Amino acid sequence: MLTAAQGYRRDISFGDCDPAGIVYYPNILAWVDGAYHHYLRRFGGHFALGQRRGSTGIGAVDVKCQFKRPLRDGDSVLVDLTAIEWSEKTFVLRYDGRTDDGVHFLAEETRGIFIEEGSRLILGSTAPLRALLEQGDG
Amino acid sequence: MLTAAQGYRRDISFGDCDPAGIVYYPNILAWVDGAYHHYLRRFGGHFALGQRRGSTGIGAVDVKCQFKRPLRDGDSVLVDLTAIEWSEKTFVLRYDGRTDDGVHFLAEETRGIFIEEGSRLILGSTAPLRALLEQGDG
Amino acid sequence: MLTAAQGYRRDISFGDCDPAGIVYYPNILAWVDGAYHHYLRRFGGHFALGQRRGSTGIGAVDVKCQFKRPLRDGDSVLVDLTAIEWSEKTFVLRYDGRTDDGVHFLAEETRGIFIEEGSRLILGSTAPLRALLEQGDG
Amino acid sequence: MLTAAQGYRRDISFGDCDPAGIVYYPNILAWVDGAYHHYLRRFGGHFALGQRRGSTGIGAVDVKCQFKRPLRDGDSVLVDLTAIEWSEKTFVLRYDGRTDDGVHFLAEETRGIFIEEGSRLILGSTAPLRALLEQGDG
Repeated sequence: MLTAAQGYRRDISFGDCDPAGIVYYPNILAWVDGAYHHYLRRFGGHFALGQRRGSTGIGAVDVKCQFKRPLRDGDSVLVDLTAIEWSEKTFVLRYDGRTDDGVHFLAEETRGIFIEEGSRLILGSTAPLRALLEQGDG
Repeated sequence: MLTAAQGYRRDISFGDCDPAGIVYYPNILAWVDGAYHHYLRRFGGHFALGQRRGSTGIGAVDVKCQFKRPLRDGDSVLVDLTAIEWSEKTFVLRYDGRTDDGVHFLAEETRGIFIEEGSRLILGSTAPLRALLEQGDG
Repeated sequence: MLTAAQGYRRDISFGDCDPAGIVYYPNILAWVDGAYHHYLRRFGGHFALGQRRGSTGIGAVDVKCQFKRPLRDGDSVLVDLTAIEWSEKTFVLRYDGRTDDGVHFLAEETRGIFIEEGSRLILGSTAPLRALLEQGDG
Repeated sequence: MLTAAQGYRRDISFGDCDPAGIVYYPNILAWVDGAYHHYLRRFGGHFALGQRRGSTGIGAVDVKCQFKRPLRDGDSVLVDLTAIEWSEKTFVLRYDGRTDDGVHFLAEETRGIFIEEGSRLILGSTAPLRALLEQGDG
């Protein structure tokens, strides 16, 4: 399952690292977000999905990340989306980031489908998106 | 308490935002990290603290962030470090990010003091850092 | 002249710096772009200007930057837009970045007003934008 | 020549783009810098080279970039270092960024080898670095 989500690789460069010589952690969240968009690409990408669903976007509600081992210039990290857990109004995506040394980080994003209602953004049902993604990744 | 931690303001620019027109969330984590370093500055900054403590750095163990309201180009967000909770080997820092519209995000970093032991990094006692920060922010 | 362009300040944080301990230079370009958007804000911002001009955006055609002195964690740099030079289809914006130590960088952006013509982007006349900006900054 | 410099590929993600839906240009400079570090990797990387040369770092003196065609979410750009031109105290690196659609950007970095002399940074001779790189890439 979730084979479409595999294979998002990032080769770490000097500029991804901070004065302590390790990856500046907000960059790790950018790679997690990148793995999510990499997964959506086979379904036409974030925007196409949003338009088909009548939403304004599939936004992040919260994010968590555990840093297990530092990453450094020259490391090549594979960021895999390992699971999606669906609720009515949100869904949780789980990720890990690995090199040959093992797991460097574990992340978890909660996302929802935001719909404009007057001037406010409310969360819509996840059911149509779930149907689409599960069909495409069967 | 934690008055030294107040006042880290970020004026959001066009380039902080993504194609959905809202702030790209990894940037929010960069501002949380920025608020942490802003707080350390009155104690000489991250590097000075590390050297005084014989550590290689005060690194992130994990991070969590809840996104309550989107931020957009032109918003000015105040990121405050609101609390530090000390344990023996780690400490938790709590943040909020506010504009006149209310709270946009709530974040929580767990950090530890990493010490080289042979080729490995281990977590040292937080007690000396706690004493230093509590003295300076009393 | 260009008084509206003054006062874009950036306080440099640990995470803006690379393993050599100085600001990672692409961040300097982000602050140059930030100073440009700061200048446009009094005219309603980039998007409002684009819509009034019937354009898809005021994009960068090229950029140049000279790095005179390194910037470090804790420095506070003032990025000023010092001049705009208008041509028929493009305009050049000049910037400097200063601290109390003097000039750290000099930058120059060439921008144009991109208009969709069928599936292509072409450069439109700068005259209407020039009139608007010069009126507002007189 | 410069075969070692080939093959730095970047797959563009949603978060690399700005509210206009195209790549935020400072990110392009980050990829140019990434291609430079990619090239240095076969020589042991930036830090190893610096230590062998007794320098504090091979820093950027200036950078120029022309933007020929916008890049968007989903594009895969190949950034090649195409030439190095040596002077006594500085060297110029030329890059292009291509997709199947053609050239998207042309960049040029001038770099020098910075050496601490008392409290100042001065530029050292490029000759030893040139010998090393030309030997490795012959």
